[in-house]
Amino acid sequence: MTRQQLIEQIFSKTTYLCIGLDTDPAKIPTHLQSLPDAVFRFNTAIIDKTKNFCVSYKINTAFYEAQGVKGWEALEQTVNYIPSSHFKIADAKRGDIGNTSSQYAKAFFETLKFDAVTVAPYMGSDSVLPFLSYKDKWTILLALTSNQGARDFELQKFITGSVAVSSSARKSSDHAIDQTEYLYEKVLRSAIDWGTEENLMFVAGATQSASFRNIRKITPNHFLLVPGVGTQGGSLQEFSEIGLTKDCGLLVNVSRAIIYASGEENFAEEAAAIASQYQFEMKALLAKFAI
Amino acid sequence: MTRQQLIEQIFSKTTYLCIGLDTDPAKIPTHLQSLPDAVFRFNTAIIDKTKNFCVSYKINTAFYEAQGVKGWEALEQTVNYIPSSHFKIADAKRGDIGNTSSQYAKAFFETLKFDAVTVAPYMGSDSVLPFLSYKDKWTILLALTSNQGARDFELQKFITGSVAVSSSARKSSDHAIDQTEYLYEKVLRSAIDWGTEENLMFVAGATQSASFRNIRKITPNHFLLVPGVGTQGGSLQEFSEIGLTKDCGLLVNVSRAIIYASGEENFAEEAAAIASQYQFEMKALLAKFAI
Repeated sequence: MTRQQLIEQIFSKTTYLCIGLDTDPAKIPTHLQSLPDAVFRFNTAIIDKTKNFCVSYKINTAFYEAQGVKGWEALEQTVNYIPSSHFKIADAKRGDIGNTSSQYAKAFFETLKFDAVTVAPYMGSDSVLPFLSYKDKWTILLALTSNQGARDFELQKFITGSVAVSSSARKSSDHAIDQTEYLYEKVLRSAIDWGTEENLMFVAGATQSASFRNIRKITPNHFLLVPGVGTQGGSLQEFSEIGLTKDCGLLVNVSRAIIYASGEENFAEEAAAIASQYQFEMKALLAKFAI
Repeated sequence: MTRQQLIEQIFSKTTYLCIGLDTDPAKIPTHLQSLPDAVFRFNTAIIDKTKNFCVSYKINTAFYEAQGVKGWEALEQTVNYIPSSHFKIADAKRGDIGNTSSQYAKAFFETLKFDAVTVAPYMGSDSVLPFLSYKDKWTILLALTSNQGARDFELQKFITGSVAVSSSARKSSDHAIDQTEYLYEKVLRSAIDWGTEENLMFVAGATQSASFRNIRKITPNHFLLVPGVGTQGGSLQEFSEIGLTKDCGLLVNVSRAIIYASGEENFAEEAAAIASQYQFEMKALLAKFAI
């Protein structure tokens, strides 16, 4: 899917909601659990009822891999079931040396027909570039994530250079002061040169609203995938006000708060009710801030 | 597998070789390619002929995922085929928020019976801890990788604190100088507190021998998984001299240089010949430096 097609979907449906299919067989309604294809059945019901309120589905590969071959089958069936109007994200957090990343890119863009895959930046440019070499496919690079552990490295400061500072009139006491930036800023600034606004997005956690303005300053036009709304507690209003651009520029993911809205037989209708509330809020936010 | 069991295997077989099963269907010998279970057949032949020369097999998940459900089946069959005497590594570079990392840990430690999984540190402690919660299972955390892209972030400098420095006798010209460390050093120092020498190893690329001494200083007793020997060009002698400890402390991975040693019908024998050369070299290195 191209950037233009994604933007058209967003404004025609007035929503930038992405629904995360983090489907855990132990958490789906009891009446489905005994079915051999329980996960796929659950996903299709959720997709059928929610597709008018969202523009994207995000499949978290971990939940499928935990089920082994059966899980990988459900993953493949699910991605094939998602309507072509919707932006299909493999939330896989992959990244390895070049020839291995090429295989991951093949897995998610060719074997499975995803539009996008999330990628971890730790190993640097040559671990990311193979994903960016596909036309009309997207790399969604981790920048600042929504979890507590973001403080351990992403929010640590790097040295980017140094400037000479004269601390008194005497030349002998001149010294250098280091210029610094956070690791997530360094990732953003580096990666902007690896891809374009047509094939690269960034993950920016909704729980990090203090840094959201800064992220938008570094990447004024890139789409941001925003996890952390719902169960993790991020405020939709707060970061939408900062992050929305004239092209929208945001995909907001909600997983558990939608798909596990109810454990009863009407789970899909309940999921749709929550998704529809998000769509209602997003319509107003788009009208106000996507200008 | 416990640390003690791994050490016993290493010294009884006098080898610390890990063979990487990065099996690409397009690269296996022609006479196997038409078989429906070509990848599994290739892997079993390699394992049968090389198992006496190595203590570990590492399965690179990317090459299996690229084949979809069929690939995931070959992965499961292969891990089940590896003898229990061998340390089984899933080279998967996973890592996500806590509840997702728990699902990845379940995938590799429970559903598939791996002893270890490689994990990317970018998202911090809570993305790594779920892997460390399994008894007698191992987390192999990326520290300094063997690729060029390691320079982009891993080999960038962080600020860890600052110390006051008096640049002249006059107090007014005192200033602070930042103390710094590389990102990979920060990862090593942080992660040492998350796990123990019984459940945590680090990836240290063989192509990074300039930094190898430093890595061994920070982690004097942890096992290091060393990729980059063979096709990537790292020197076995050079980093073994620096990295070997009395418990060995190294697992050296070779993938392509062994498994693709020949494209003919005798591919497994040729692979064994290369593996046996590594074992021969390692025996001498263990005798000289593992003291």
